[in-house]
Amino acid sequence: MKKTILSLLFAGHSIFAVAQTKETISGKVENLLSKMTLEEKVGQMAQITLDVVTNGPNRYASDEPVILNNESLEKAILKYKVGSILNTANNRARTPQVWHQIIGEIQKTALKAKNKIPVIYGIDAVHGTTYTAGATMFPQQIGQAATRNRELVYKGAEITAYETRASAIPWNFGPVLDLGNDPRFSRQWETFGEDPYLIEQLGLQMVKGMEGDNISNPYRVASSLKHFLGYQSAFSGKDRTPAFISEQALREYHLPAFKAAIDAGAKTVMINSGLINGIPVHADYQILTRLLRDELGFKGVVVTDWGDIENLHTRDRIASTHKEAIMKAINAGIDMSMIAYEYERFCDNLIALVKEEKVKMSRIDEAVSRILTLKYELGLFEKPIYPLKDYTKFGSKEFEQAAYDAAAESITLLKNEKNSLPLNKTRKVLITGPNANSMRTLNGGWTYSWQGEKVEEFSAKYNTILKAFQNKIGIQNVSYYPGVTYKNDGKYFEEYKDQFEETLKAANSADVILLCLGENSYTESPGNLSDLYLSDLQTELALKLAATGKPIILVLNEGRPRLISKFAHLMPAIIQTYLPGNFGGDALADIVFGDVNPSGKLPYNYPKFPNSVVTYNHKPSESRTVMAGVYNYDADYNPQFEFGHGLSYTTFEYSNLKLSQERIKSTGEITVSIEVKNTGKREGKESVELYLTDVYASITPDVKRLKGFTKISLKPGETKKVEFLITPKEMAFVGIDNKSIVEPGEFKINIASQTKSFFVE
Amino acid sequence: MKKTILSLLFAGHSIFAVAQTKETISGKVENLLSKMTLEEKVGQMAQITLDVVTNGPNRYASDEPVILNNESLEKAILKYKVGSILNTANNRARTPQVWHQIIGEIQKTALKAKNKIPVIYGIDAVHGTTYTAGATMFPQQIGQAATRNRELVYKGAEITAYETRASAIPWNFGPVLDLGNDPRFSRQWETFGEDPYLIEQLGLQMVKGMEGDNISNPYRVASSLKHFLGYQSAFSGKDRTPAFISEQALREYHLPAFKAAIDAGAKTVMINSGLINGIPVHADYQILTRLLRDELGFKGVVVTDWGDIENLHTRDRIASTHKEAIMKAINAGIDMSMIAYEYERFCDNLIALVKEEKVKMSRIDEAVSRILTLKYELGLFEKPIYPLKDYTKFGSKEFEQAAYDAAAESITLLKNEKNSLPLNKTRKVLITGPNANSMRTLNGGWTYSWQGEKVEEFSAKYNTILKAFQNKIGIQNVSYYPGVTYKNDGKYFEEYKDQFEETLKAANSADVILLCLGENSYTESPGNLSDLYLSDLQTELALKLAATGKPIILVLNEGRPRLISKFAHLMPAIIQTYLPGNFGGDALADIVFGDVNPSGKLPYNYPKFPNSVVTYNHKPSESRTVMAGVYNYDADYNPQFEFGHGLSYTTFEYSNLKLSQERIKSTGEITVSIEVKNTGKREGKESVELYLTDVYASITPDVKRLKGFTKISLKPGETKKVEFLITPKEMAFVGIDNKSIVEPGEFKINIASQTKSFFVE
Repeated sequence: MKKTILSLLFAGHSIFAVAQTKETISGKVENLLSKMTLEEKVGQMAQITLDVVTNGPNRYASDEPVILNNESLEKAILKYKVGSILNTANNRARTPQVWHQIIGEIQKTALKAKNKIPVIYGIDAVHGTTYTAGATMFPQQIGQAATRNRELVYKGAEITAYETRASAIPWNFGPVLDLGNDPRFSRQWETFGEDPYLIEQLGLQMVKGMEGDNISNPYRVASSLKHFLGYQSAFSGKDRTPAFISEQALREYHLPAFKAAIDAGAKTVMINSGLINGIPVHADYQILTRLLRDELGFKGVVVTDWGDIENLHTRDRIASTHKEAIMKAINAGIDMSMIAYEYERFCDNLIALVKEEKVKMSRIDEAVSRILTLKYELGLFEKPIYPLKDYTKFGSKEFEQAAYDAAAESITLLKNEKNSLPLNKTRKVLITGPNANSMRTLNGGWTYSWQGEKVEEFSAKYNTILKAFQNKIGIQNVSYYPGVTYKNDGKYFEEYKDQFEETLKAANSADVILLCLGENSYTESPGNLSDLYLSDLQTELALKLAATGKPIILVLNEGRPRLISKFAHLMPAIIQTYLPGNFGGDALADIVFGDVNPSGKLPYNYPKFPNSVVTYNHKPSESRTVMAGVYNYDADYNPQFEFGHGLSYTTFEYSNLKLSQERIKSTGEITVSIEVKNTGKREGKESVELYLTDVYASITPDVKRLKGFTKISLKPGETKKVEFLITPKEMAFVGIDNKSIVEPGEFKINIASQTKSFFVE
Repeated sequence: MKKTILSLLFAGHSIFAVAQTKETISGKVENLLSKMTLEEKVGQMAQITLDVVTNGPNRYASDEPVILNNESLEKAILKYKVGSILNTANNRARTPQVWHQIIGEIQKTALKAKNKIPVIYGIDAVHGTTYTAGATMFPQQIGQAATRNRELVYKGAEITAYETRASAIPWNFGPVLDLGNDPRFSRQWETFGEDPYLIEQLGLQMVKGMEGDNISNPYRVASSLKHFLGYQSAFSGKDRTPAFISEQALREYHLPAFKAAIDAGAKTVMINSGLINGIPVHADYQILTRLLRDELGFKGVVVTDWGDIENLHTRDRIASTHKEAIMKAINAGIDMSMIAYEYERFCDNLIALVKEEKVKMSRIDEAVSRILTLKYELGLFEKPIYPLKDYTKFGSKEFEQAAYDAAAESITLLKNEKNSLPLNKTRKVLITGPNANSMRTLNGGWTYSWQGEKVEEFSAKYNTILKAFQNKIGIQNVSYYPGVTYKNDGKYFEEYKDQFEETLKAANSADVILLCLGENSYTESPGNLSDLYLSDLQTELALKLAATGKPIILVLNEGRPRLISKFAHLMPAIIQTYLPGNFGGDALADIVFGDVNPSGKLPYNYPKFPNSVVTYNHKPSESRTVMAGVYNYDADYNPQFEFGHGLSYTTFEYSNLKLSQERIKSTGEITVSIEVKNTGKREGKESVELYLTDVYASITPDVKRLKGFTKISLKPGETKKVEFLITPKEMAFVGIDNKSIVEPGEFKINIASQTKSFFVE
């Protein structure tokens, strides 16, 4: 892997900004800060959205083509000293050229001010550089989690950093390190799934891929770990609604990925827009300062999410005025407010609050120092933008190959009755379903626009599933009827019957049906869901196609596991593609016809029923066994498919599970080894996964927890030995006193079918 | 009301045990305790189920007819000194005569011991005396909550106490004071619904109705507040699974009803079988001792739920042995273990633990003192059983009338398009649905058996819905086809088509269809649910009947609000009966034909979708309004019917909302008055309900909270003025520091359509 990284970093480049030592930066920051007025300082803490400074009918929209409005820009940057801008205009991707032109002008304006502080531009480059036309789109994080492949995740982040910086943007609002433990949540697909260890491991790769060793490198960006902390575990499952999470659970499940990324040097953190235990996190001193700063030692910038200080007043009603909301958030520990629109209100109020001594000047200085430090570290003072010609690899074949590789390793074969797959290339295939011919659904939200509704405009050169299949086996072997189609200008869940009867009829002349179901694109609150079942129309299509008696390969293309239990038993093969990006159609075709052997594993429990949603690492009471006597009922733990599930076209045999010792001290370590053999006839990749169970503990233990994974490739007949190290970190849990502890007693190790116990004394 | 109470208490009686003063009891307890061995003390802390001491194939089952086994009984009572027995044998109701015979023998055995300590017998008399044949069955608590009628609730509890004591049983495991805020939970119907104030107010009536002024009164019983604390708010919605509840939320929503009942003198408390924040409540010293004892000052007995000490080891794995589990529970604050079966293990281990000084003798003495005190207070030492002839009102017409009244006031008219109801008695009615001809479904669980499956055996004299309608309008006007029928010996959710096509055909010759849908009976884990939608078969029946074009009155008979959104719009009238008890059929017929004017109000939000389950008193973020700018999405708060909803056949007009003052101190009070006029043509009852909103608060405030209700009756044209008092208790909330606080600012009062604000300075 190392070679690839180096090639990316240095290819075609000999010069970039001289690395700043921390010492010189800290001196510069101190010096600059001492020259700044209160107004300048407060301006640095303000972030606005691009529409505010463009020509347009109002503050919320821009004319096309987008042109900066000098008056608005100077008011924001020079009068109000605003230090940061984010987002695109009109919620639409722009070419690298347009980005260079816009951000170039913004930086030029910033240099007119006395202190010449560059603006820091931030963007959501969520699975590739979202808002740049021609950028490389990877599988969304949920698919990347299914690859179980650390190298692919690193590489994707590195390429995204490159293409973001190629767009003159040095700050990416990612990765998402949220625990994605709720399949109802509209952003589960933006996470690495439900397992804390998997998130920690892949999150770390993503941060390293984005930031590299030095963010002054013109191919790297500052990352933003989001959303600190506990964002996706809302009680009702809706976006930005109250969560109830104990401190113990926050630390046990939500915190580890953030801690690891912070320890690795991540530069910024974005805050959870929701509420935990009644307190909006944006106003929670315990989380923003006591935990993040004092305990984790985070030194970087804390930025709000969109409009979230305003929300303290207008939505959550913990502040009776906007001014009180600003006071509460800044005093809790916010450094920069993603105000979006009403920046005058923010700046004027914050200046007044400092003058009234309701916010201390030391709090302002602290925030501004961090922001200036970030700008220095990015090299923005020296060279805010590198020329576009320095980014020759933007949208290159090399980058596209990496996106394809990630898609191919993410796709997860969930069911394959009687080896229905792979298909012979001579079969006549009916392709149908609302996801069969859509680049939008392959990509999901955060693709060329917020909700993904503009994807088709930008993705003409890539292949939908239909197109990829036509390329693969010839147009003559493929028939296509949508059956059901999403309303492109409606809500994500709106759809209609589209040649429904023709689809059923076409089934009769096909050998096999490729039924592509799932969801249209969405994110955040517009993606809220009230019913986890797959839609009624798609269910009807599945049932009626099954009634034709033709074999069906069910292809799922969805941001979250929509329930298929009403018809899954009628489908001989089921493939989960998640949101695989622009190369998902190609990767799927290669898997269906056997040119690629699938190796993805589910990063979450796929539920069977809407009110039976439980993670794989649940507590014993969720899957308890029968009690003696009259109360002889059993639990109903009933996922459709479990976390870690994923089939291959070959078979693997596990043997010789060995432990270096069976009794250790609580500070000890154990080396675990296992042999894995490819017992089938095809080469295949396999994620070898170690699960650990703390059998008894002072807090009810999880039934099992992933504590190690390694993806290997095996030729037919080949055997490899895989080793894992169990250290106190793996054996520990967060105890009643909210501190990490390793307790004596039995631990069980599980790798595939193999089990062994060891004892901590 | 007072007159009724007195008549019950003293009718036909001149003598009962002389009231004990606390002082004399405390002296007696101290004296007795000083004479007891460790073994005797530990025995007092043990509770077993009746099957253990009967003849039968094993410990878990009894022969029929049930006969005590002398050897088992003497082993338990005399050798192991077991102090308490519960439950019935073979999970089957018994006649009062059998109860007298069994419990008489048990007490006789207990008197053979040196210290002659009577056994305390306990039972779940959940909506009437569950396990006594011929006892009066009231609506389940959820229906009683819908009545909004404090007097009816009091009276029901008083009658239940009478009939329980008439069965020789002095201890009732009720009321349920759980917050019933989860419609997925299998025991929501055992609660007073989702509102803390409603639960507090009605819970208080139930405790007073059971215990009266003095539990030595032979018509009263000791109550048991259950399940302390936070039982029904499990994350997955399944019974006895982990809950995540902050201390603030526990205190704000779950605690008030328990606190009020404890302040009113309730004698015992039963513990939550589940886990909060990873800790099984049965092992939680903070909840069992710091909160319940030190803070609330509870002096009575704390009893476990069924097998819950065992569960610490076998289910929740916080103890690696049974012995450790016992140690943890007793040290956390358990006084009595509802062991159920393996009492030897409990007693032997606890004795050993005391000898090993792992449980202090002072902890044992404390627990036993409380248990002995309860036995003295109940007068068990003086007269453990009163003769059956003293209970002439058992199962009387007077009692049945009270049960009918409660059913009639509970039934809630949810929808009445174009005044479809009341029906003319000359209409031809098709009665259909699985709940149309079932006493089991009218009663629900905890009726003659645990799961309610034996109801039909015991309820032949009462009327199903079908029978009540036949009685009302004559057999000639009623046709009946089930359409769908529950499998009586299956799981509660198993059902099958039963004359389905005939039902559809019969619709053609009817004027109107009474479609009786809902659930079969269940409780606890066997009642777990995976899909909140009403079953597929019942949905199909509703849709196909609607397609006939005949008007449908949908009658719901269900323990929790099963979703009807797929067909509710096709039903001109919808009536919720909850689980109305043995007189539910009669009450429903009287309402449908207009002999009774409905006055029930929903005690919960009736959801529309399975993954959109939010209480009426949610946080503002659950129903936020649109933000300015690009993120212009709206929330999706979408209940089918809201808490407090309930129609009448007459109309009420609210006017003249007046506040005694509009600015007060945080220690002040406000008198609120409103006038309510019956503007329709029929006499009607109306629950006048006051909602309070704390507009801004330091913890995100609820959108509104019920803080007062009064049920009044109005003749046509009549007006009544209703007054409420707002005190600091109503204005306060539990703050960030978990202490109650009244914060300055605006408060809004809402009564029906009327709104006024006041300000705390």
